[in-house]
Amino acid sequence: MSNGMKIEKSGNIAKVAVEAKGAKDVEIRWLISKEDGAENFAMRMFELQPGGFTPLHEHRHEHEVFVIEGEGIFVFEGREHPFNREYVIFVPPNEEHQFRNSGNSVLRMLCLIPMSAA
Amino acid sequence: MSNGMKIEKSGNIAKVAVEAKGAKDVEIRWLISKEDGAENFAMRMFELQPGGFTPLHEHRHEHEVFVIEGEGIFVFEGREHPFNREYVIFVPPNEEHQFRNSGNSVLRMLCLIPMSAA
Repeated sequence: MSNGMKIEKSGNIAKVAVEAKGAKDVEIRWLISKEDGAENFAMRMFELQPGGFTPLHEHRHEHEVFVIEGEGIFVFEGREHPFNREYVIFVPPNEEHQFRNSGNSVLRMLCLIPMSAA
Repeated sequence: MSNGMKIEKSGNIAKVAVEAKGAKDVEIRWLISKEDGAENFAMRMFELQPGGFTPLHEHRHEHEVFVIEGEGIFVFEGREHPFNREYVIFVPPNEEHQFRNSGNSVLRMLCLIPMSAA
């Protein structure tokens, strides 16, 4: 750490359970957040165990997602879109969505949000 | 594509050479940009061939970086910081920095910036 710079193996950053209603077997690492000096957007990594899912919900902020490993289903407007590693997903504001792990191994993905929503 | 949603394998998104002065063997894919409806920040993927590097420069916006594969050196304030896959790097504004591929294979990393700098 120097002058606000951060360089760190992501696996060394603390992982905590996501306790949100409607979530199952989801954990999160806050890779880059306001505490690191980031003012505009935050980078998080989500880890979903097989069978796990994020809440089916909507909110006023967008998501920018990049899939690191695993297989999943992206639910958007009631339709299911399969994805796997190296997929990129843009979720616009105010649209109902959900991520599900549909594979037999962990699903890991980056999900970035504007800092106003962090 | 539906209501501004985007889901796409990142390797299918166009890759173009980075022609910036001081860059060598660098290509970029704009994974999520203003054209996709993103208003706050943009997600790009950089691909550096062995021996390639980004410009040694500074600017008013921050970077949020996640390393997909490969090995590299992050230069910051004249010091060299080695990294490899799954490293996360936060580059604060107005600090001189550079990324170099120090390995024998391609270095691929996500680099996000505020839309005001895109």
